[in-house]
Formats: sequence, structure tokens, C-alpha cells
Amino acid sequence: MAGSSFGTIFRITTWGESHGRGIGVIIDGCPAGISLSEEWVQTYLNRRKPGQTRYSTPRKENDMVTIESGVFDGLTTGTPISMVVHNETQRSSDYSEISSYYRPGHADFTFDTKYGFRDYRGGGRSSGRETIGRVAAGAVACALLNELGITVTAYTKAIGSITATPASPDISSLIEERDASPLFLPGKEASDAAEEYLKNTMKQLDSAGGIIECIISGCPAGLGDPVFEKLDANLAKAIFSIGAVKGVEIGSGFSCAVANGSENNDAFLGMENGRANKATNHAGGILGGISDGSDIILRAAIKPTPSIFREQQTIRRDGSPVSVQIKGRHDPVIVPRAVVVVESMAALTIADALLVNMSARIDRIREFYH
Amino acid sequence: MAGSSFGTIFRITTWGESHGRGIGVIIDGCPAGISLSEEWVQTYLNRRKPGQTRYSTPRKENDMVTIESGVFDGLTTGTPISMVVHNETQRSSDYSEISSYYRPGHADFTFDTKYGFRDYRGGGRSSGRETIGRVAAGAVACALLNELGITVTAYTKAIGSITATPASPDISSLIEERDASPLFLPGKEASDAAEEYLKNTMKQLDSAGGIIECIISGCPAGLGDPVFEKLDANLAKAIFSIGAVKGVEIGSGFSCAVANGSENNDAFLGMENGRANKATNHAGGILGGISDGSDIILRAAIKPTPSIFREQQTIRRDGSPVSVQIKGRHDPVIVPRAVVVVESMAALTIADALLVNMSARIDRIREFYH
Amino acid sequence: MAGSSFGTIFRITTWGESHGRGIGVIIDGCPAGISLSEEWVQTYLNRRKPGQTRYSTPRKENDMVTIESGVFDGLTTGTPISMVVHNETQRSSDYSEISSYYRPGHADFTFDTKYGFRDYRGGGRSSGRETIGRVAAGAVACALLNELGITVTAYTKAIGSITATPASPDISSLIEERDASPLFLPGKEASDAAEEYLKNTMKQLDSAGGIIECIISGCPAGLGDPVFEKLDANLAKAIFSIGAVKGVEIGSGFSCAVANGSENNDAFLGMENGRANKATNHAGGILGGISDGSDIILRAAIKPTPSIFREQQTIRRDGSPVSVQIKGRHDPVIVPRAVVVVESMAALTIADALLVNMSARIDRIREFYH
Amino acid sequence: MAGSSFGTIFRITTWGESHGRGIGVIIDGCPAGISLSEEWVQTYLNRRKPGQTRYSTPRKENDMVTIESGVFDGLTTGTPISMVVHNETQRSSDYSEISSYYRPGHADFTFDTKYGFRDYRGGGRSSGRETIGRVAAGAVACALLNELGITVTAYTKAIGSITATPASPDISSLIEERDASPLFLPGKEASDAAEEYLKNTMKQLDSAGGIIECIISGCPAGLGDPVFEKLDANLAKAIFSIGAVKGVEIGSGFSCAVANGSENNDAFLGMENGRANKATNHAGGILGGISDGSDIILRAAIKPTPSIFREQQTIRRDGSPVSVQIKGRHDPVIVPRAVVVVESMAALTIADALLVNMSARIDRIREFYH
Repeated sequence: MAGSSFGTIFRITTWGESHGRGIGVIIDGCPAGISLSEEWVQTYLNRRKPGQTRYSTPRKENDMVTIESGVFDGLTTGTPISMVVHNETQRSSDYSEISSYYRPGHADFTFDTKYGFRDYRGGGRSSGRETIGRVAAGAVACALLNELGITVTAYTKAIGSITATPASPDISSLIEERDASPLFLPGKEASDAAEEYLKNTMKQLDSAGGIIECIISGCPAGLGDPVFEKLDANLAKAIFSIGAVKGVEIGSGFSCAVANGSENNDAFLGMENGRANKATNHAGGILGGISDGSDIILRAAIKPTPSIFREQQTIRRDGSPVSVQIKGRHDPVIVPRAVVVVESMAALTIADALLVNMSARIDRIREFYH
Repeated sequence: MAGSSFGTIFRITTWGESHGRGIGVIIDGCPAGISLSEEWVQTYLNRRKPGQTRYSTPRKENDMVTIESGVFDGLTTGTPISMVVHNETQRSSDYSEISSYYRPGHADFTFDTKYGFRDYRGGGRSSGRETIGRVAAGAVACALLNELGITVTAYTKAIGSITATPASPDISSLIEERDASPLFLPGKEASDAAEEYLKNTMKQLDSAGGIIECIISGCPAGLGDPVFEKLDANLAKAIFSIGAVKGVEIGSGFSCAVANGSENNDAFLGMENGRANKATNHAGGILGGISDGSDIILRAAIKPTPSIFREQQTIRRDGSPVSVQIKGRHDPVIVPRAVVVVESMAALTIADALLVNMSARIDRIREFYH
Repeated sequence: MAGSSFGTIFRITTWGESHGRGIGVIIDGCPAGISLSEEWVQTYLNRRKPGQTRYSTPRKENDMVTIESGVFDGLTTGTPISMVVHNETQRSSDYSEISSYYRPGHADFTFDTKYGFRDYRGGGRSSGRETIGRVAAGAVACALLNELGITVTAYTKAIGSITATPASPDISSLIEERDASPLFLPGKEASDAAEEYLKNTMKQLDSAGGIIECIISGCPAGLGDPVFEKLDANLAKAIFSIGAVKGVEIGSGFSCAVANGSENNDAFLGMENGRANKATNHAGGILGGISDGSDIILRAAIKPTPSIFREQQTIRRDGSPVSVQIKGRHDPVIVPRAVVVVESMAALTIADALLVNMSARIDRIREFYH
Repeated sequence: MAGSSFGTIFRITTWGESHGRGIGVIIDGCPAGISLSEEWVQTYLNRRKPGQTRYSTPRKENDMVTIESGVFDGLTTGTPISMVVHNETQRSSDYSEISSYYRPGHADFTFDTKYGFRDYRGGGRSSGRETIGRVAAGAVACALLNELGITVTAYTKAIGSITATPASPDISSLIEERDASPLFLPGKEASDAAEEYLKNTMKQLDSAGGIIECIISGCPAGLGDPVFEKLDANLAKAIFSIGAVKGVEIGSGFSCAVANGSENNDAFLGMENGRANKATNHAGGILGGISDGSDIILRAAIKPTPSIFREQQTIRRDGSPVSVQIKGRHDPVIVPRAVVVVESMAALTIADALLVNMSARIDRIREFYH
């Protein structure tokens, strides 16, 4: 099944494996006329590049992107945009051993069961490198959103039990604090504490998880649909499609389960430019599946990296038990590098919803075709 | 956009509003040869019917289903199954007032913004009655899953801060305890405490939220795809598409964020009939987006009913502020009635994944067409 | 598979069998705010109703439509429009015999092979009655097109070898002449000759085929896509999905195979309101898969009704040979009743292309969301 | 919109322009375990390569394919297969002039209208080079079909009014005769006559059209769906999506319009291995939209190449009239090179239908998951 595509109108398809020739993405349905350069896309890719701090895999990849089609004279043409990043450092030998057994917490077992065999080098298609395609496409989605004054901002909300302490909820200050932290975790003290926690975790040959928060600002009211294509349902799918995500919540999220309606309802105070002005935002910017014009806020729970250097119990392909110790180059925590992936998947979802929404009303359609 | 459809191969489309002629669903892509009767579907619909306890709206609806097509001699024919439930008690007068203002926590504002106007009677398309179509379709999905030995079981995990205390994790005992509780919350003591909490909440003209857990048993390994169509991503979208859901988690969920890899990884112990036998199930039955054959476990956070009888601050269609007190017949908590809706959406997702998975391997395809 | 749906944004799903409870359609993705009444839809359905002349089946059906959802205060709401026509005269007994053998030229054999059994009453899902859903939906598509000044006009171009002789190519005069003919074949003389031919055919217990032409006027330039979603490709699929169609051509069609480029190319003369003004229209209004603003012209070849009253050679379900003589009430030619079906499928295709096209350019999108 | 994708389960997405970096295709949903090499794909691409005879453009392209992902140890892995052909000889200068006016019979005008501007070099996305992606993907589809004993064979049926005269209807002899002709037109005499006709056409600075026939053999009965996803409807769309196609017919095609039912019906004689044995095959192997197991036969009308070297009347971008004479390297007839494109599109359609069909019956599904 076409399981490597995402989106309805602004639709992307990713391809490539960790240790094949490269990783790529096709964007089909990107509107014509948007300024686009390799430099712009590279900025996003650099944020997920490995080897930048001691908390990410020492595997060095330049991850340089090439735009192969769909751009002419610096503008998108409305036809498919193909982008590729060629793989450079491939130590397949690291992986020859894991062809024989199933790593706990990985897709090895399920892949073999589904397809009969697998490209075992570096996780193959299930590798985190697959997200390169998402981030390249997300960069283009952000270029589209920028044209409409919409911004998407994700940051590390927590690593383990250490939570971000941004000085201000203001987006630009949040971004500044985020980018000052090697863990993309706003708040100097919190960031330092998280580094300490990670060092300790690494010493114990273990790994850590965390939480990423994403804020979408400037979104017009009216995006999303009232039934199956609710904006929050599509955002949840988008975020859950990222490898290590085990939970997603919108607005007040799980805490709403213990709240009362009188606490959880957001009183309407007024309207501004077709957007609701609300006393609070427990809804996280979405009511009945449709954006209300206030900030859309979501959080994702990221599991600890399954590749740990401790001895673990598992089985071989024939089902026989074996004790293994994973080698290779692995991130002790993937949260920081996943921040831009969350941002990308959110941007792709909003870009698609924007285009889908254009056909909702005959008065606007008549105007369009005047 | 076709926002009222769900699924790729086993695909449903719902229609209807709270106060229109009725609510219905078309299932397109249901395999031929499955035994199906109106009685079977009715059993599922009865579980979401209002007016059964004091904790659901006193609005009485029989919600009797008619199968209009796609079944011949008691078997599905492979062609579209159309099912309808006609609306009976429609007190539209209850709603004439709310046409003029936007209820907090509801889709009134976003609907008007998106479509230019709305059918304001009883929430129109955003009404909880829309889920009738989902439950009818879910009953058919369950009939399909039963043929393959797969069961889907949801129950109230918590109401407010009171959590279920099932005597045993065994599915059939869980179902028995669930069905003994008016709140579908297993554990007599917990159920009584939740009732007490709800009575109190109602006295305060307020509403409550909670958590629903769903367990899918007997699922073969190999369902789902490794990238965007991950089984957990599709389950998350399915569950998030239910009106009041604000969070979804799989397996260890949000708690994985504070765990270490050595705790969170599930050791493989062996294989049985192509399924993984694991020491623990923090993964919730899904690895790399593909089912591993163990129980699939998910939880959904349900917000408190937004329709409360207290005075609330809101705005009129023209943006002017107004203080309102909602009237009508509303559930003080929707969790119990949503249990079968969660079950239905999960069943629909699994049924679709089962059919999609059939084309994964050429050896199985050759066998199929021998 | 979701084989009963058509369209991407303006998406319809039909359901129902010839001898079940009824035939229906859901339109999902119809924009909000379009005036719609049952009377409007009925006008279209009346054009395909049987029993109006001696050249259609004497089976009498009123085929009265009910709109069950998606319309409020006379306007579409943007949510699914469900329409149903209940079956009235069902002589299932006519069909009990055909359960045991496969009628030549019908789907009996292929249906049994695909699904393992079939609802044999009146062709079941393969009955021409399935097109009721298409025509009801087509009526709504036409209401949408009318808002934008687009008209869709089909007529009988030929029955057997007798070809229409319209007095003028003007659309309104064409419609007048068409509606004056019991065979919807413009030109009194031609229509009379075709009647004579049909009477003769019926006398010989035989059936006839023909050609339907469809003209879409007022279509803006720019609809359709340059690769797989070419406007002509989608029109061809739409028309080929009608039961008895064996060929489709656009513009000069098959005759272009024997023409030279210098004859077949349409010289551009100028532009008017963004539409091309061309010396000829061999392209049939579509260049490179995209509408050029001139009339879109297509033709469909309709095979002779396979239900003939002569003795025919066929096989039973077990493969044994048998000689059969079909009974019941059948059209000697389906061309006239199929005219409005062709019109409907063309209208549905154009309506969808109009909505899809809105997201092609960032300048128009920016304007839309100003 | 995702207009560069084709297929539901076996789904391809093409990208690239005539004068960009290259042309490529992603196949998503190809089953795992199929033997695949670049050599296999190259064989198909060589059949559409330009510069092989005097009847195709003298532009020399090697069109060497690289498989970038989705194949491991010589087998497809079930994940996306990315293939690319880099562009080599790009004389963009040839095209600088045509940026200012609209070539008759080309997509120049409609592209500009739709997207606001266009990549005018060599037709950009509307170039015949886009079909490279289709042919590469078609080669993979054929590898899948071969595993199931299905063959797809296209050949030039006619050029201008000169029709093929194959010595035998036998497929392998047909292929032999086809490949002996520089025009892929079986029958030495006919091929020679067609060459003569083309030489004459070229002398007159003109171009020619023709007809391609395609025969699909070994297809099991049961493929396709009874309503919108009819196998013939999908084949028609597939073929119509090829640039110059103006008509498609199945089986008896347009000639059925003048036949009677007694002539056009195919009598059933018996069954063999679940396939119908019929006295004739006017249906072209498809009944009610579903394959009956006999040969599927279709024909496509190809218009004469619009790029001719005669003076033509057209307009500039601003609408002002201009007389032009097209330069560059163009095929005087595209029929021969389009043969393998028709084959590819047909193979892709059948491959997809095969996979879709697997979920039609619960007995087969139960067996599959036993």
C-alpha cells in the first residue's frame, strides 16, 4: 500500500534506506510560485543532522540536499519537487551481526514477519534517516505557510523528568532560548540539568526519552473537517508516524480527563479578524476538529532510544533465545533531533489543511473563479 | 473534501445530522461472505444508546438500525453496505436559541467560520449522534475480525481521578466487570466511587471527563506499515477523530518519556505461531508501526462534556459578548457511551490494516492466485 | 476496495441493488451554500426513469428522491448529502431462474468468480439502476457548475448507424431538439429513422447500441493536471465506468489517427477572458490534460443491450452448457436513458476538477486567505 | 493535487522535466520478494529511447536507469523503489524562443493559465520524457505480472491509414513481427508502406498519428470492481493519461454502436481454471467492469505530433497573434515509441487490480491468515 505518502493535496512520498544510495522525497501538489532554494531546505536539515553534540550519534553525515525537479527560476512550478540526500558514511559492517537476531524495541521482528526478509543494515527503511525526507518536505511546507503568516515552532519540552523553563511564552524568545540549548530545551538551568541527566544515563549504558511541544501560530480559523479529517486527528497521525512517538495530546490533553467542564471550557471573549479571542486555550486551538484561529498546541511523548549498549535478552530469526549487546553509533536520546521532525510533520499537516479548506464554501469559490 | 470517510480498503462514509432525517453509514470494501444481520449491529448500537442511566442524556432514542443494501441471504455481498438509523425525538426548539451565539467548547464558532453558516440544531454534523454510523460500521468490522479470531475490547479506565480496578487482566472477566457497571468501569468499588463523583458533579451543574482503554487481542503480526501508515498512527487518527478526545497513547505512552531504554524495551522470549512472545509489552503490541502479535493497547483522554448548565461567558455571531446558560438534555459525562465508539474506531482500523497487509509479499500473492 | 466512490474533493459514493430496499448516494465534499431541493434533483432523475416510451423497459418506477442530510434552510451545509430512491416494483421472481446460469454479455459470471456468489436479482449491483445514484449526484454537481456559468449537455449522437442531424450547433437549440425526440436524438428525420430501426430490431427480438456526445461549455481554462490526473483521463474513466460503454473519444478522437499534424493542430487566434480563441477545436477543449476554455467535447460508444429475447448459448454455474431465452422487462436500447448518466458523470468530473484546481498557485491562495 | 501518482495499492509517483536534472519514479506498494535488476528495467526503457530510427527525434539520450532504493540482495523489499534517469543532452537554447508564444497542439497555453508561468524548456513537465518514469515503473509491474503468468503486449496497430497485418494472432509471433519492424508494426508489407507514408509526411514538414493495440493475456477472472473502479475504466484512464491519446476502446469498441446484441454478445462455451471460455471476445475480456479470464484487448488513438516544421498561426503570451515555425528535434510520429508506454500503463493498472482484488472474499482472507 502507498504507505510512504502523506497528505491529500500537498502530498509527499519519501523513499530510501539508511544504508542505500540515499534518502529522498517527492512533493506533489505544491502550489506554483513559491520561492524555494536548496539553502532554505538545508537550514532545516541541519537541525536534524547527527554528530553536532555528544548527545547524538557520532556518525558524521553532511546530509546535503539537492533539488532535482519542480523549481524553475527560483520558484516552484506546481509540478513534483524531488529532493535527495545521498548517504555518505555507511558502515554496513556494523550491522552484519544484527541480521541474525531481533533487536528489542526495534522493527526487526515485525519487518521480517511482514515482508519475509529485511534490509537489516541500520534499520533499513525503519531508520531514523527516513525522516530526512520529511524534514526536507517540511521545509517547503514552511515556505508555503510563511507566505500566509503562519509559523510552526517545536522545542524539547522535557527530557526524562526535567522540564523546560522558558523565560517567556513569546514565540521568538522561545526559539532563541531553544537554539541556545544543545538539547533544544529552553531555559538554561533546565538544559544544564538535562545534560547532567543524559551524561549519567550514558554512563549507565542506557538511554532517555522525553516530550516535544509544538506551537502553530497565525493559523486562520476554519482549517480541518468536522468528522474523520479533524485537524487534530490528522496532526495526531502525522506525529504518531514519527518512529519513537508513543503518545500525542492537544491543548490540555490527558489532564482534561480529571478536569470539570467549567474549568476546561474556554470562554469566548470576542472576535478579531475572523479568529476567536478566548479567555483560555485548553482546546489547543481546535474546536470540533476545526481550527479556531488561536495557537494550536500539541505535545508528543518520545520513547527512550531502543539501541542501548547493555546486554539484552532477545531471539534469533529461528526463535531461539540469545543474549546480545548492541554496538554501533546511536543517539542516547533522540528528542533533540526529533524536534525539527515534529515541526515538519505539523507543517505538512497544516499546509495540506489550508489547501483542502479552499473548497468549503460556494461564495469563496465563486469569488475565486469570478 | 471527503472528510466523512475513513479507511483505505475497508472504507466507511458516514452522513447525517443530529436533527435531520437520520444518521447513516456506507461501508465500501467489506469482503463478501460474512454473516451479517441487523440484530448483530443493533447489539453494538444499544451500547451507545442514550437514556439508559442517570449519567447519560434523558433524551430517549431507540436507534433501530436498518441494513439497506449489501447483504443477500444473510451474507455480505462485497458491495456497499448501507445502514441507517432514523432520528425520532427531535426537539429542535431546544436549539433555536443557540443559533445566535457560540457555545464554549463546541464547534459552533469554527463551523460558522468554515462554512459561512451552520445547521445549529443539536450540533448538526458535530453532534455525538454522528458516531451512530461509526458504531454500526464498527459492528461489521468486528464481524470480520471475529472470523479471524481477533477481539477488540474497550472499557472506562477512569472517570475524573477515579481509576478502574479490574479483578483480573483476563479479557472475558474484564468484559463481565465492565458490563456490570453502569459506567462500564470495571471494579465495583471504583464504579461506585465514580458514580458518587458524578452525582456530585451534576449537583454542581458541571461535567466530568475520563479515560478509555482499548485492548486488541489475537491480531496477527505484520499489520501496519513502516512509515506514514504506521498502525499506531492510524489508530491515533481513528481515536482522535472522536469528538471529545484530547490525547491518545499506545502501550507505555506518556510514561515512556521518563523511563530509560533498559526499562522500556521489551525483551523477546520466543515465537509462537509467528507472534512475538515478549517479557513485557511497553510497546503496546506495535514495533516500528507494525503489529508484533501481542495485545495492542491504547488509551484515550476524553474531555468533560462542554454542555454544562452553569452560566458561561461567550459571544454572539456578531462578536458581541453574552452570558449564557445552556438548556436541553446533555450527558454529564460522555465516557461510558464513548466506550463502544472507541472500540468501533479501533476495529475499523484493524480491519482495514488486515486487508491492506495482504499485498505485502509476492510469495503470499502467488499462493493466493496459485 | 472503495470501488463505489468517485472524485477526489467532490466525492460521491453510491450504494444499492436493483432489487434491494433502494438506491442511494452520498456526496461528501460539496461546498456549503448552494441552493438545493428535491425538485431540482428529481428533474434529472426523471430523464433516466424507465417506462416513458416503448423503447425503454415497461417496468414502471417513480424513482422519487429524498434528500436525507446535508441541506438546511434550502442550502447545502458542506456536510455529506445523502439521497435515496426506494425501489418499488420488484418482481424478483423474474430472476429466480437466472441464478443458475450466466447471461451472455452480463456480469453474472465475473461477479460469481470475484465474490463467490451474487445477488442475482435484476443484476444486483451491476444493474443499470445503480446509475440513479450517479444522476442524483450529477444533479448536485450541475447546481454547483451553474453557479459558475458552466453547462453540461449530452444527447444521442447515433443509434445503430443513424446519426443525429441537429439543425444548429447552438447548445440551447440542441437541447430543444433533443428533448423533442423520444430517443433524445436531435433532428426529426434522424429521430424518426432511428425509431423505425428500433421497431425492426425489437421485432427481431434483438437490441441496438449507439453513440452519446457530451459538450461542456463555459469551463474556465486551467482545469485538470498535466500527468495522471489529466482532465480527459478523468472524463474517460468517468464515462467508461458507465455499464455499457466500450469506447470514449475526445475532440477529433479516433479520426486523429489518420490526420496529419497540420490538419489536427488548432491554431490560436487570440485570448478572451483567459480562454483560448482557436480556429478549430480538434483538441476537444483540452490541451496537455488541462482545459483551454473552449468547449470540451467527448463521445461514448454504447453497446447493444445484452438482454435479448433470442435463444442464446451459455453455461450454468457448474460450467455445463445450456441454451437460454431471457425473460423479463428490458430496454431494447439503453442509449436514450444513458444520456443523462453521461451528463452526470461529466458534471461530477468537472466539479471535482474545479475544486482541485483552486490550490494550483500561491498568488491565488494568498488572495484567498488575504 | 497529487496528480503525479497512479494506482491505489501498487502506486507510482513520477517527477522530473525534460530539461531539468532528470526524470524519476517512486513505486510505493510493490510487494516484497520480486527479483529486480537495473538490466530488467533498462530493457523496457530502451524500447522508448529516442534516436533509434529516422522516424524518431535525432536527440540522443542513453536514458540509463539507476535503482536508488527498495531492492536488497536482488529482491524488492516491499519499501519504495526509487528509480532515476539523468538528463544528458539538453539544448535549452532551442527553446528560449518558445517561451514567448504558445505552440498549437501543446500544453503551453494551458500550463501558463493554470500555474501562472511555466518551465518552457522542452515542454517541461508535459514533455514526452515524463513517460520514462512510467516505463521504468511498468517494467517492475511486468516483473510482478510475470510471477503470475500474465503478459502485456502492445504494438503499432496503424500509422495513418496503414494497418498492421500480423501473420498470426499468436502473441509470441506477434511480438517477433513487431520487433522486426522499425515502427513496431507487425507485417512486413504494412510496415514498409507505413515507412513510405512517413517519409512522405516528413517531406511535407508534417507529422502523423496512428493506433496502438494492447493485449493482456493470462489475467485471472475477477479483477476490477463493478461500479467506478471498473477494470476497463481504470485502463481507459491509464491510457488516456498518455500525452497524445485522443480515444480508447475495449474489445469491439466503437464498432459495437452499430452492432446488434445478438452479434455483440459473447456466448459462453465452458469454464477452464475459473476462466470463461467464450465463442467470441467482443467484450475484450471484461464483463461488468470485471475481467473474465480471456484476453483483455484495448486500442488507443494517438494524435499526430503537434510539433511540425510548417508555419503555424498562434499567439504570444499577451494574446497578440504571431506566425511561427517550430525548430528543434521532434518525432514525426510518436506511435512507435509510445507502444511501450501503453504497455507500461496497462501493466500498472493490472498489477494494481490484482492486489486490490485480494480482499474481495472472506473465505480467501481466512485462508490467507489461516
